[in-house]
Amino acid sequence: MSALPPNLFWNRSSITPAARRLRYGQEGRIVWFTGLSGSGKSTLATELERCLFACGRHVYLLDGDNLRQGLCSDLGFSTADRSENIRRAAEVARLFADAGFICIAAFISPLRADRDRARSLVPPGRFVEVHVHAPIEVCRQRDPKGLYARADRGELKEFTGVSSPYEPPLSPEVALHTHRDDVETCVNQLLHHLEPSGPRTLNAS
Amino acid sequence: MSALPPNLFWNRSSITPAARRLRYGQEGRIVWFTGLSGSGKSTLATELERCLFACGRHVYLLDGDNLRQGLCSDLGFSTADRSENIRRAAEVARLFADAGFICIAAFISPLRADRDRARSLVPPGRFVEVHVHAPIEVCRQRDPKGLYARADRGELKEFTGVSSPYEPPLSPEVALHTHRDDVETCVNQLLHHLEPSGPRTLNAS
Repeated sequence: MSALPPNLFWNRSSITPAARRLRYGQEGRIVWFTGLSGSGKSTLATELERCLFACGRHVYLLDGDNLRQGLCSDLGFSTADRSENIRRAAEVARLFADAGFICIAAFISPLRADRDRARSLVPPGRFVEVHVHAPIEVCRQRDPKGLYARADRGELKEFTGVSSPYEPPLSPEVALHTHRDDVETCVNQLLHHLEPSGPRTLNAS
Repeated sequence: MSALPPNLFWNRSSITPAARRLRYGQEGRIVWFTGLSGSGKSTLATELERCLFACGRHVYLLDGDNLRQGLCSDLGFSTADRSENIRRAAEVARLFADAGFICIAAFISPLRADRDRARSLVPPGRFVEVHVHAPIEVCRQRDPKGLYARADRGELKEFTGVSSPYEPPLSPEVALHTHRDDVETCVNQLLHHLEPSGPRTLNAS
């Protein structure tokens, strides 16, 4: 009756999701940031983590660049490797959500199918897709890591938005416009979505 | 001056390890169970998680079988795939420790080099290697998953202890003898190691 391979068994933790919910006063979930390089994902994710932690929330930030230096250090930037990178990130985010955490994941994650697969790993309502949007001309001007310049010189192949596609979310839970709104405004928008009964607001200090 | 690849940057969380330590009243670490199939790893790890959670600790259990159905579902049981399985598990455990959690990892993890690499991912003192030992004849008799029988019939290739090596730890932080001691005794031994100033003891209820 089991769909498991015959040499694998599912080991159930004795800590129920309800026990974790009670302990942490929150429901484990994934807040998934997607957007072009330079759109502001890491900045906003880092600030959201700070605010939620300061509010007493249990939160952890998974960052694309960081993961590529550990869990995903064996992967490159081909389409297949990028999908595998996102698959692993999503599986880790699911584990953190299972542990009762709000897991903030900040990844370019250019493909809709990869993000939808990430969404499918947690129960409905526990995946918050955040589109961090700025026009590519703005991202290119910011170019905080000098990557657009390198892509233009042909040093980086398959660079999202330049030589590799970006598929924007069709109906994200939250859409942020970082060319128009500042960090505080964007993070408040996120907090109002995540904590509707709050309202907690960003302490700019 | 940086050792990072030129297109990767390290994004630093604004939550310091000290802030997490203060919040959780504990130091993030990895408790790594190694041993043959049937030695009792999952049973002990599950019970340790239950006890630590009941004591107010922040704890999460990574189980080998479970991970193989998610993060590591693309891997088989060749030597290379097993090493990659342990590498990924260790990287995830490191993230949980970084989040301030006590991460319990239960994996056969037959190779010393793989376990030593896992140890190297966290600061000294934050990796507790637990050798769950029982003679293979005892594990074979228990055979809770029927795997030894299948290995003997040739249905499972490269089965640890039968057709694939197991390298026992040379100096584990904790050595448990599950053919001699019962679950309560073993878990108390672990708790005394993890919480020396406690002493918390296992509530058998």
